[in-house]
Amino acid sequence: MHKYKIGLFGFGCVGQGLYEALEKNDRVNAEIVKIGVKTPGKERPLPAELFAYDPGEILENDDIDLVVELIDDADKAFSIVKEALKRKKPVVSANKKMVAENLAELIALQKRYETPLLYEGAVCGSIPVIKTLEDYYALEQVKEIKGIFNGSTNYILTKVIEENKSYDEALHAAQVNGFAETDPTLDVEGYDPKYKLGIVLQHTFGIYVHPNDIFNQGIQNITKSDIAFARERGLKIKLLAKATRQGNNISAFVAPHFVSKESPLYHVENEYNAVLVDGDFAAEQLLLGKGAGKLPTGLAVLSDVVSITRGYHYRPSELHNDLSFEPSTEEVYVSFESNETLDFNAFKHITEKYVGKKTGYVIGQIDIPALKNLLDENNANVIFTSGAKAETEIHKLAYSYEIG
Amino acid sequence: MHKYKIGLFGFGCVGQGLYEALEKNDRVNAEIVKIGVKTPGKERPLPAELFAYDPGEILENDDIDLVVELIDDADKAFSIVKEALKRKKPVVSANKKMVAENLAELIALQKRYETPLLYEGAVCGSIPVIKTLEDYYALEQVKEIKGIFNGSTNYILTKVIEENKSYDEALHAAQVNGFAETDPTLDVEGYDPKYKLGIVLQHTFGIYVHPNDIFNQGIQNITKSDIAFARERGLKIKLLAKATRQGNNISAFVAPHFVSKESPLYHVENEYNAVLVDGDFAAEQLLLGKGAGKLPTGLAVLSDVVSITRGYHYRPSELHNDLSFEPSTEEVYVSFESNETLDFNAFKHITEKYVGKKTGYVIGQIDIPALKNLLDENNANVIFTSGAKAETEIHKLAYSYEIG
Repeated sequence: MHKYKIGLFGFGCVGQGLYEALEKNDRVNAEIVKIGVKTPGKERPLPAELFAYDPGEILENDDIDLVVELIDDADKAFSIVKEALKRKKPVVSANKKMVAENLAELIALQKRYETPLLYEGAVCGSIPVIKTLEDYYALEQVKEIKGIFNGSTNYILTKVIEENKSYDEALHAAQVNGFAETDPTLDVEGYDPKYKLGIVLQHTFGIYVHPNDIFNQGIQNITKSDIAFARERGLKIKLLAKATRQGNNISAFVAPHFVSKESPLYHVENEYNAVLVDGDFAAEQLLLGKGAGKLPTGLAVLSDVVSITRGYHYRPSELHNDLSFEPSTEEVYVSFESNETLDFNAFKHITEKYVGKKTGYVIGQIDIPALKNLLDENNANVIFTSGAKAETEIHKLAYSYEIG
Repeated sequence: MHKYKIGLFGFGCVGQGLYEALEKNDRVNAEIVKIGVKTPGKERPLPAELFAYDPGEILENDDIDLVVELIDDADKAFSIVKEALKRKKPVVSANKKMVAENLAELIALQKRYETPLLYEGAVCGSIPVIKTLEDYYALEQVKEIKGIFNGSTNYILTKVIEENKSYDEALHAAQVNGFAETDPTLDVEGYDPKYKLGIVLQHTFGIYVHPNDIFNQGIQNITKSDIAFARERGLKIKLLAKATRQGNNISAFVAPHFVSKESPLYHVENEYNAVLVDGDFAAEQLLLGKGAGKLPTGLAVLSDVVSITRGYHYRPSELHNDLSFEPSTEEVYVSFESNETLDFNAFKHITEKYVGKKTGYVIGQIDIPALKNLLDENNANVIFTSGAKAETEIHKLAYSYEIG
C-alpha cells in the first residue's frame, strides 16, 4: 500500500500536535518527511534535516504527495495551497481565514486540478463539523445552523457571567490558560467565528459569502448593565454564529445572543464549542467539543490526512440551488448611555424602550444594515434576542430596571 | 458516472424514509429498483412491479449492485446480508441486533469478499456515531464512551422524573407518540442499547463482545422510592450504555445511572439520544440528536449509501491492540423491599445502608457478576452511581430518608 509522504508547513501548536498524533498512531498510512518553517537557527525538538526554509523545497519535491498547511499568515498560506493544488498535491489546512477569504477560488482550483483540499481543523477544532455537513446534511435541507464557534470568547463570557469576573480579568485568565491569543481582537470582536461561519455557509447551503459581507459584533462592548439584564431574566449571553434559511434567502451573522436555558447552547461553558443543526430529516442535532488546542485540532488534521489517503474530497459546489444571501431583520436589544442620542427610527418596530439615569436600552426589530449604522455611529452595544426561546423571558422584568 | 441500483429489503418506517429521502435528493448517485417485502397483495404506495416477494429476485439480480437491508427479523436479515456479501454486493443495514450478534463473522465476510457493509443507522439514528468513531477516534486512544442510546426509555424517564407521570402512563405516552414499540421489552429492559453498545465496542476498541456477554439492566424495576431518592439529591436517572478502558481492560454495560447536573447527559431529555466520547486527543465530545424515527434513521441509511458509492468502508478489525473484555467493579445503589434478605456479602465495600419500614437501599462497590446474581435472586433494583460526579451528592441526605 502506498505510504503518503507529507510536507508540513508550520510547526506551531497544531503542527506539533499533528506530529505527536502521527507518532502515536500506526493506522495512518502517511509520514511527515519535511517541515517548512520560517526562522532558521531556532532550536527545535526534531533533527535539523527535517526542516526546510524555502517553500519550494516541499512544493517542488516530487516525492511529497500530500501538503499540510498550518501556518498563521493567511496570504502566505493561500500561495502555498494554490501552488500545491496546481502541482496536484492534495492539501490539508486548518487556516480558517485563508479558506474563508478564498473559498470560491479554492473550489475552482480543486476542480481544475482534480486535487482535493480538506480543512476540518479550520472549523471548531475536534468537532467533525464539515464532515457531518458533507456526509449527512448535504443530503437533506438544513433550516438553520448556529453555534458557539469560538472557545476564548465563550470562556470569557462564562467567567464574566457565571463567576462574576470582570471582562479584563476573564480575558487575562483566557490568555493565561492558552484559550486566547496575546492579541485577542480576532476572537473578541467576532472575526474568528465569522471566518468559520463563512466556510459553514458554503458546506451547508452551497453559497459563497466573503467574510467582509457578514455582519459581526463581538463581546468587547458588553456592559455590566447588559450582564445584569441577562442575569435578572435567567438568561446567559453567548456569542453565536448563525445562518438561517427562509425560503430561498440565507441570512448569517455573528453576534452576542441572549440564550435561555431551554437551548442546548445554554449549557455549553468555558472553552467548549458547539454546533446545532436543524434539518428537515434529522431535526435538531448538537455536536459539542473542544474547538481549539494542539491535540483536538491536531486530531482533526490527522483525520483529514486519513481521508485524503482514502480518496475522500468535499463536494461543496454540487449543492446546486437558487439561494441568495440577504440581510435579515432581527429582534435585538440595544443598550446605550443615556446621554447618547440614538436614532430610534432605525428600528422597524420597538417592543420596549427604557432610559434611566445613566444607561438605557431598546428592544425591537431592525434590519442588519441599519443596525450596523446604529452601532457605527453610537456608543452602543447589541445583543440579539432570538436565541432566547420565550420572548416573555426577555420582557418579564421590563420597566422595573435600573442600574446606578 | 455509474448510477447504483439499490435492492431494498423491507418497506417499513425506515425503508419508506429512505425512499422519501432519495426522492427528494439529486446528489445521490443511486436509485431503488426493487423492494423485497414479505406479504404479497398488501396495498402499497408504489407501483406493484417495484416489489419482490422472493429475496432471490434481488440477490440473484446482476443489475443490482447495492443492497439495503431494513427488515425486522435479525436472522433473516443475517441470511440476506451474508448472501449479498458473498455475491460482492455492498450492503447497508440498520439492524442493530443482527449486526451486534454477528459482527465478528460480518467483518470476516467483508474481508473475504472485499465488499463493504455499513450500518450507521443501527446506532442512534441520525447521530453519526460509527463514522465519527471510524474517522476520528480510531486515530487516538479512547478512555470512555457512554451515552443515552435508547430514545423510548429516555422519553419514559423524562416523563416520570420531570413530569411526575407514572411508569405506565409514560410508557403509554411513548407508544402513542411512536417512541416505543407495542412490545417494549427490548427497549425498557435495556437490550436495544446493549446491541448498539456491542457495535460501538468494536469500532472504539477493536474488540468483539457478543451481546449475551454484556450486563444489561433496564428501567422496568425503578421504584417510586428510587425516583424520590434521586429527586431529593438533585439527580436524574438516565439509562446509560457505557464502555470504559482501564489499562488493557475494557468493561461495558447498560444500566440506569444517577446523573448529576454537571454531566452533559443530564440535559438530554425526551426521545433524544446522546453519545459522550472521552479521548486522549479530542477530550470530551458530545454528539446529540434524534436516535430513531423514519427520517433521522432514513438519513443515516442514505448517508451510508452515499459512502458506499464513494468507496468508503469501515476498518474495525484494524484497531489492533491487546485489550480484553473484563467485568468491572462498580459503585451502585441497590434498592429492595425491607422484607427481602439481600446478601450484603456480595458487596466488596458498603458505603451506606438503610432499611426502613417498607423499603431499603444499600450503596457500595460490587463486581458485575455478583450484582447480576443479586438481582436474579432478589426483588431488587440497581442504579449505578458512577454517572453522578460528586459522590457527596449521592450521600448528602443519607440516613434522613424514608418512603412510606
